[in-house]
Amino acid sequence: MRLTTVRRTINVKGFIALLTLLVSATCLADDSNALPSWQDSAARQQITAFVSDVTNPESANYVALGERIAVFDNDGTLWAEQPIYSQLFFVADRIRAQAPEHPEWQTEEPFASMLKGDIAGAFGSSHDAALKLVRASQAGLDTDAFDQVVRDWIQSARHPATGKPYNKMVYQPMLELLSYLQDNDFKSFIVSGGGIDFMRPWTESVYGIPPERVVGSRVAKRFELIDGVAHVVHEGTLEFNDDKEGKPIGISQHIGRRPIAAFGNSDGDLQMLQWTSAGSGPRLGVIIHHTDADREWAYDRESDVGTLNEALDQAPQRGWVVVDMKQDWKQVFPD
Amino acid sequence: MRLTTVRRTINVKGFIALLTLLVSATCLADDSNALPSWQDSAARQQITAFVSDVTNPESANYVALGERIAVFDNDGTLWAEQPIYSQLFFVADRIRAQAPEHPEWQTEEPFASMLKGDIAGAFGSSHDAALKLVRASQAGLDTDAFDQVVRDWIQSARHPATGKPYNKMVYQPMLELLSYLQDNDFKSFIVSGGGIDFMRPWTESVYGIPPERVVGSRVAKRFELIDGVAHVVHEGTLEFNDDKEGKPIGISQHIGRRPIAAFGNSDGDLQMLQWTSAGSGPRLGVIIHHTDADREWAYDRESDVGTLNEALDQAPQRGWVVVDMKQDWKQVFPD
Repeated sequence: MRLTTVRRTINVKGFIALLTLLVSATCLADDSNALPSWQDSAARQQITAFVSDVTNPESANYVALGERIAVFDNDGTLWAEQPIYSQLFFVADRIRAQAPEHPEWQTEEPFASMLKGDIAGAFGSSHDAALKLVRASQAGLDTDAFDQVVRDWIQSARHPATGKPYNKMVYQPMLELLSYLQDNDFKSFIVSGGGIDFMRPWTESVYGIPPERVVGSRVAKRFELIDGVAHVVHEGTLEFNDDKEGKPIGISQHIGRRPIAAFGNSDGDLQMLQWTSAGSGPRLGVIIHHTDADREWAYDRESDVGTLNEALDQAPQRGWVVVDMKQDWKQVFPD
Repeated sequence: MRLTTVRRTINVKGFIALLTLLVSATCLADDSNALPSWQDSAARQQITAFVSDVTNPESANYVALGERIAVFDNDGTLWAEQPIYSQLFFVADRIRAQAPEHPEWQTEEPFASMLKGDIAGAFGSSHDAALKLVRASQAGLDTDAFDQVVRDWIQSARHPATGKPYNKMVYQPMLELLSYLQDNDFKSFIVSGGGIDFMRPWTESVYGIPPERVVGSRVAKRFELIDGVAHVVHEGTLEFNDDKEGKPIGISQHIGRRPIAAFGNSDGDLQMLQWTSAGSGPRLGVIIHHTDADREWAYDRESDVGTLNEALDQAPQRGWVVVDMKQDWKQVFPD
């Protein structure tokens, strides 16, 4: 009888201990299992050391939950951006789909080049040409309609070089990093030069980042009552360019706080990295360096897409971690 | 021995049942205790019925966690806005503080009127005058400096009619509503005509709404490197007016999803209420009607501040709940 009592008592205690363990496991990050697609290199160690430091209540560098803001560039940082930005393929598909209603596009530039398949040429010919194409891809649609157009495209379209859906052209180590930061009570935001309304329909399912945590370039919109029913309609004119100097301004507009960690891959992210690093207390700046021509693409200073030059020069003096994709990542894309 | 075994088994089962109960109590709203400062009137019942419906997994109207977006106007909805918007008192204090460096303000309008104490007159004289005053209150400061100026003011300033700090001039029933929605996994945002950078430094401590969930009117900002150190500096020119038609556009910019619930008190909230209500599925629109001249202020159609006219007319046909502050609230301000 006594033995049974003891055994049962142990069971209750064991049950409570198990619960405590479960709660601890949920609340505290276990760094040893984090980031399995990352080599155990200096880059990974610098990232995990930063996170351990700012989440350690005993540390002088401890950062309160709400202030753990991390910002991520998208093109070239979370998903591939070669041979051209994926949004340009989207715009090209939209132009093709609408071409039957616009016979004048067969001869009018930049539409004519686009319809002949010269996407990079059509976009690259001038800033004005690029704006015309983006406008044609979304102007006049209301927010619900454009959202659906993007959802349909991301489901059906395939990357020309790999044949994969674009939402599988994301970096497995970065998905792990997003999860790792979330487990450590960071709030992660995308801060991209890409169109804000082009990203929002799929970032939550792909990255776990909800629409309100996506900052990007914006077209103007107007409010309209049609037969008494309210709509918000895309005007199509570029209202905010969330690139270079625009990124810290976009962060200030949308987030209202300076991040403590920033992740980018190009000179478009330079000012975001500079502003993040300039805050007081511990800061993490990370540059993803595309060095892997076999598993992905290798490019930096001379590339038209994702030029990485000034930011690479400034990385050592500003203490930014440079991730060498070839050396530091065991795996690039998800299985 | 058998008896003891049974008793221990019951204890373990009882412990698990208790845990289940605790978890349920945390996860499910207990409507009977929610909103203690609200009378058990039709307004309260309509609000809690909506929340119970959209959070009930068995309901056809169930709304997934991430899509439970609620938007709140600030002036007149979450805090008092009489005799004039509180931000105007802030601007007046900023003008007074800077006056010694600007002797020309003694004769130059609208500064001269402002320095003589005619705040409403100085602001009301023209749109241009109002913009000049707002610009003078923040232009040239970087984000950290302006943030600190606002924090200092909200701690030290007192409302002229009540002598209370402005952050105590908030509505107790609305604080309870914010908590109730948070307990039901809503994401609440402020969408205000007020300055976004004027609200963000204190909304988290007062309302539990972090800076990134505040949408408001914005001045332009610029990025600057000063001796290699990055700053984001307020330019002072009004770049976005988050009022009337601007509110649904501001929501689209910042949140990227149509809310399922909107709370306002004036015609400045009309389009936000219209756009929220126009979405498919269950929607909640609420208008706070200022009817209590004893405990607060009574005003609507004829008021210069917080004019409520068109929205009040449209409320019945659009199914918006009109909260009568005098009848529906047991208490207005926190103790």
